Amino acid sequence: MKINDFIEEYQSIWFDENNIINAIDQRKLPFVFEVFQAKTLDEVCFAIRDMVVRGAPLIGVTAAFGLLQVVKANVFSDNNELMKTIASASSKLCATRPTAVDLFNVVKRVQNKLDNHLTITENISIIENETEEIVSEVLLECQKIGEIGNEIIPKKANVMTICNAGALATVDIGTALAPIRKAHELKKEITVFVNETRPRMQGARLTAWELYNEGIKHYIISDNVAGSLMQQGNIDLVIAGADRIVLNGDVANKIGTYTLSVLCKEHRIPFYIAAPKSTFDTETSSGKDIIIEKRDPAEVQKALSINDENDKEPKKRIIHHIASPNINPAFDITPAKNITGIITPNGILKPPLKKAIEKYIQE
Amino acid sequence: MKINDFIEEYQSIWFDENNIINAIDQRKLPFVFEVFQAKTLDEVCFAIRDMVVRGAPLIGVTAAFGLLQVVKANVFSDNNELMKTIASASSKLCATRPTAVDLFNVVKRVQNKLDNHLTITENISIIENETEEIVSEVLLECQKIGEIGNEIIPKKANVMTICNAGALATVDIGTALAPIRKAHELKKEITVFVNETRPRMQGARLTAWELYNEGIKHYIISDNVAGSLMQQGNIDLVIAGADRIVLNGDVANKIGTYTLSVLCKEHRIPFYIAAPKSTFDTETSSGKDIIIEKRDPAEVQKALSINDENDKEPKKRIIHHIASPNINPAFDITPAKNITGIITPNGILKPPLKKAIEKYIQE
Repeated sequence: MKINDFIEEYQSIWFDENNIINAIDQRKLPFVFEVFQAKTLDEVCFAIRDMVVRGAPLIGVTAAFGLLQVVKANVFSDNNELMKTIASASSKLCATRPTAVDLFNVVKRVQNKLDNHLTITENISIIENETEEIVSEVLLECQKIGEIGNEIIPKKANVMTICNAGALATVDIGTALAPIRKAHELKKEITVFVNETRPRMQGARLTAWELYNEGIKHYIISDNVAGSLMQQGNIDLVIAGADRIVLNGDVANKIGTYTLSVLCKEHRIPFYIAAPKSTFDTETSSGKDIIIEKRDPAEVQKALSINDENDKEPKKRIIHHIASPNINPAFDITPAKNITGIITPNGILKPPLKKAIEKYIQE
Repeated sequence: MKINDFIEEYQSIWFDENNIINAIDQRKLPFVFEVFQAKTLDEVCFAIRDMVVRGAPLIGVTAAFGLLQVVKANVFSDNNELMKTIASASSKLCATRPTAVDLFNVVKRVQNKLDNHLTITENISIIENETEEIVSEVLLECQKIGEIGNEIIPKKANVMTICNAGALATVDIGTALAPIRKAHELKKEITVFVNETRPRMQGARLTAWELYNEGIKHYIISDNVAGSLMQQGNIDLVIAGADRIVLNGDVANKIGTYTLSVLCKEHRIPFYIAAPKSTFDTETSSGKDIIIEKRDPAEVQKALSINDENDKEPKKRIIHHIASPNINPAFDITPAKNITGIITPNGILKPPLKKAIEKYIQE
């Protein structure tokens, strides 16, 4: 992605020659552009849990890099020790966040490639190759999602999105933002309406930052504005990312996505999901079975003081003055019936989604 | 309303013997409990515009107090001068905020009572009496709304609300919160789900503060959570306030209310509006004709830095770093067809709302 202020090109994450995982620190954007360095497995787990990195495909890539780092940082006396180390690192990584399935898919994929009959060196190079392939695939799949998804974006369209399913949620370009980038590249004169995405503000902080740097026309809106804009006929389509797509076509994505899908249904506006293959969960049959992460209520409370100009220590005060509890689920489930189509690197899956997904995952 | 920390009883606004309008400063709650004093018409207008006071019925009362203050602060040589002063103060007050109709209704009501054939002293005492009556009416009407609205709240109900239609939006008790207070008083063991209500956070800051002080069980949620809670069957009914109810039953209320009404329709959840008679606009036939206030985009941008722990000067940084524009409408229009009923002091208006309203305003 372009970053105007720096006149440089960045990807969201990279693995360097010193065995360090480097990632744009997404907690600090758009105010500070800073690279977070994870040198240990604990730091990798922290980066995922604390949302230094976030977005299902990027969480997957981070986990792959995490396994590679562990393997490169240790000396193994036999294959058994290597396998054990990988298994232990895998469980630590898988315990960071429960909903985005790319994490589990990637960890499983790497583990499945290891072979007890090969030498340690061979197994390590398998992990290296697999990690490289995972990254290349995410890059290539996002490109394809961009090309395929662009076709559903009319000229001068008003496109709405939620959260960040952009370059920052993947390695580059994004899933939901890939078609938007492509449409912009083709001079379609689109306008993007970015739901700010409470409580963590990934729309206002990350998606708007990406669009700003690319020069794509956009407006940030509070999530409460989406319905009214649709009611007034100002939105042509919605494209969102996904954290997990299960066999019946139900989709887990950022909290608020379900509401958008209901609003789209009410206003007969197309509602699309964009995702790479790693976001498909081939073992879960229905959205009911997806574990929804509940995050720290402080994420919601922190915004309480925003309109108090005279408060010098808002964060401290919140702790002392607010006793109201809150509920903070990070995701919700959009049922297959509310989805117009799922934009994949191999084409747009159309309803009945269950059938389309069955066919797709066998390809 | 009770304010636990102070072991005292307060109303949202009062007019004192020194011709000063006193109001709880709603910009500072829940962190600081402070009384704002408006000593001049400019200060009264500021209080409305800057949302020291907000909520349609309270804006109306504030305007009535504003006119009374002007009249008491001046010496008039004749009735004509008095009328001119009232007219000029009225236009200033009416220019503060465009959507809440109570403001216009109250100002008109006071003006209509003045009589050129009476003495100046008589006219001033008319204004005094009318203001007193306006305040008493709001108090009484909220009480009645509480009693009538309580009947639609089942035992152990999960009630959702948005923004603040409580004691702070009226003089005491509230509109949407009146039935909730009554149900709590009757030990119905209800739980209130409070939409935080971006961008100004009136739900998280004001409604939660009222419920906390009353000991009513509640949870603050980011507005994005409402749909998911309904989908899971966790919400029994929604009660919201109103800023303006027009002849066909369309309702202007805080941005996000329309989305809640669509979500209720999708999940077959009753969606109620609660309002006193002063919130009915008897001159406008359809929601399409209501002017929606567009507020400062900074209200939306201010929350951007909330998750940046290391940022010492977030407000300054926002100005320098964020170029993304945003749209900030303060209200939206819920069409009559999405409304289960309007809780008034005289009973619940049921669809067809146009007919019910026609009858009600003639009572």
